[in-house]
Amino acid sequence: MDDLTKKTLDLHKKNRGKLDIIPNVPLDNREDMTLAYTPGVAIPCMEIYKHKELAYDYTIKGKTVAIITDGSAVLGLGDIGPEAALPVMEGKSALLYKFSGIQAMPICLGTKDPDEIIKTITHLAPTFSGIMIEDIKAPECVYIEEKLQAALDIPVFHDDQHGTAIVVGAAVKNALRCLKRQIEDQEIVVSGTGAAGHAIIRMLHHMGAKHIYAYNKYGVLHKNHLENLNEIERKLLTDGILTSPSENIDTLGKLMIDKDMFIGVSAKNILTEDMVKSMRVDPVIFALANPDPEINPELAKLGGAKIIGTGRSDYPNQINNVLVFPGLMKGVIEARARSVTLEVKLQALNAIASLVSDEELSEDFILPSIFDPRVAETVSEAVKSIKK
Amino acid sequence: MDDLTKKTLDLHKKNRGKLDIIPNVPLDNREDMTLAYTPGVAIPCMEIYKHKELAYDYTIKGKTVAIITDGSAVLGLGDIGPEAALPVMEGKSALLYKFSGIQAMPICLGTKDPDEIIKTITHLAPTFSGIMIEDIKAPECVYIEEKLQAALDIPVFHDDQHGTAIVVGAAVKNALRCLKRQIEDQEIVVSGTGAAGHAIIRMLHHMGAKHIYAYNKYGVLHKNHLENLNEIERKLLTDGILTSPSENIDTLGKLMIDKDMFIGVSAKNILTEDMVKSMRVDPVIFALANPDPEINPELAKLGGAKIIGTGRSDYPNQINNVLVFPGLMKGVIEARARSVTLEVKLQALNAIASLVSDEELSEDFILPSIFDPRVAETVSEAVKSIKK
Repeated sequence: MDDLTKKTLDLHKKNRGKLDIIPNVPLDNREDMTLAYTPGVAIPCMEIYKHKELAYDYTIKGKTVAIITDGSAVLGLGDIGPEAALPVMEGKSALLYKFSGIQAMPICLGTKDPDEIIKTITHLAPTFSGIMIEDIKAPECVYIEEKLQAALDIPVFHDDQHGTAIVVGAAVKNALRCLKRQIEDQEIVVSGTGAAGHAIIRMLHHMGAKHIYAYNKYGVLHKNHLENLNEIERKLLTDGILTSPSENIDTLGKLMIDKDMFIGVSAKNILTEDMVKSMRVDPVIFALANPDPEINPELAKLGGAKIIGTGRSDYPNQINNVLVFPGLMKGVIEARARSVTLEVKLQALNAIASLVSDEELSEDFILPSIFDPRVAETVSEAVKSIKK
Repeated sequence: MDDLTKKTLDLHKKNRGKLDIIPNVPLDNREDMTLAYTPGVAIPCMEIYKHKELAYDYTIKGKTVAIITDGSAVLGLGDIGPEAALPVMEGKSALLYKFSGIQAMPICLGTKDPDEIIKTITHLAPTFSGIMIEDIKAPECVYIEEKLQAALDIPVFHDDQHGTAIVVGAAVKNALRCLKRQIEDQEIVVSGTGAAGHAIIRMLHHMGAKHIYAYNKYGVLHKNHLENLNEIERKLLTDGILTSPSENIDTLGKLMIDKDMFIGVSAKNILTEDMVKSMRVDPVIFALANPDPEINPELAKLGGAKIIGTGRSDYPNQINNVLVFPGLMKGVIEARARSVTLEVKLQALNAIASLVSDEELSEDFILPSIFDPRVAETVSEAVKSIKK
């Protein structure tokens, strides 16, 4: 057993997981019991019965979200099932609390049927002030999020889609700010059309990008070749959000020629140094596959990349959704927002980008550190400002 | 606003509810993040994927149950809905932790359809080591518990039924021990045939009682009058667990004549001093309606009651399920029991009764105090001994 394995397993075993659900009230004598349990507890119950919104004041609902998965697309590990997904959900809950003070109950569901997932979460909703769905495979995740948000009056947020799209959007914005380019002029390739890729493409479109091409494990996406595509991928083409290249451009190598930006949320080592060399001058490469990126940053540099971002903490420009979800969830919960709108997402994106000053901005510093204590507060205030 | 109201609402508002869901691992630097989140977290995930039972070691599953209600029968307040039920579920979670160290997530469901409740809880099961259902109205609660336990490989426990039946069983056992009587000879009236009454009647039967009569708001239960009875009440008669009196005995007043014990889980002030006087010598009266019992203990005393128990903490002999569920849940979880069998329930009952020594046992001391630190440990060891 190597050192990381031993340390990690010891950490997870020490207290049985990474979270504790514990009372914050005294229960040491009969008077304590009278207030926290019967007969006193009937008083907040009846107050909430009369005015349902008081649940936000008198119960954990006011500070607690559910983090829910079916374990079908966990990290890069795939469909490992609900029990094996629990350490990731606990980790997410721990990060949410660490960076925003919002608490989260991880819930791993023993069903992968989208309609059963929707019904189950709908039944759970009264206990929580918001729902985060996590690591549910595409395209089911898009359907589940849409139906749930339509059914519920609390915000629903799928971090793999929108957290990623927001932080990538902030990175794109600051990369172009650094290079003094306009997004309208950029020729952009997105590699990967799952939950993250799909949401990134839509976000780039909302930001004003006019030339977005997509590639996945079946090849280059093209409006004349809809075979092998699922409904959400097809819609990107039929809605005109994606541009189809000429039909002879059918490999990633051919697609990369004369492009300005590459955004990968796909698989390791699919981008080569030569492909980077074939791009326009000073290309931007975001290779976000984890833990091994689409191209090693040193190779990308050799190929001429001007700005390089990865999901890793051991290179500059770490592009990680922990910059997004703590502040965003805090903001929508404190504002009692009923949903996470496009406006909310763009506010979060701009808030993150704005934390890098003109003086700080450089090729190796396009995003704030995940440990920058201003991030969650700035994002949550920006999100809340919409309601003001 | 009176003093209790103010103190209770302040307590519930101070920290938004009575529970916190917080990390127990450090997250202060990149190494911490590597162990608690990516990439380290993939290691326990894959260990659990290979050996599902390791979820008990590496995640909150090993120490956490769900406390689930639909808000349809909350305390004596009735159907107040899921949000208003949350303070009670949080209180139960706090008590569970206080007395056993087992943690619990309160979940209040936005559906009252028994089959939807069963499906939802089945989907939630992978995250938890046990399920407590609470404050769901009868007879639905019996159906839900039976179907759930058949579907799940983790223990399911409905405290309103079995917690109450176990603690009442322990109280009956010690009352008879104090009075040197045999349960087989006792003529017992149970008032109330909901979740608690139904389970108490079955428990008394398992303990050997031969003459159990029941009364509810529609009158005396009789095998020739099954109208107004639900299926679980009917079955008590048709299975011969309940005795039917002669047909002219059709009021509580007539039913009480020449009986030895009265156990009420029903409504305030329905038992009179004269009814107690009409019982056999040295009757036992457990008047458990909360907060106002079936008869005021002083009146019961005047009527000649020898042993009196209530649900209240301001009289001797408090009969409260907090003596049961912490130790019982701890025992079944630590034993990895797949269900809460009758044997488990009888072990818990006998363990509680055994904590009152022959020297301590008296008319005013038939059960240990809810603050007696030996209770949960003794119950949990007794429950675990079944598996050894």
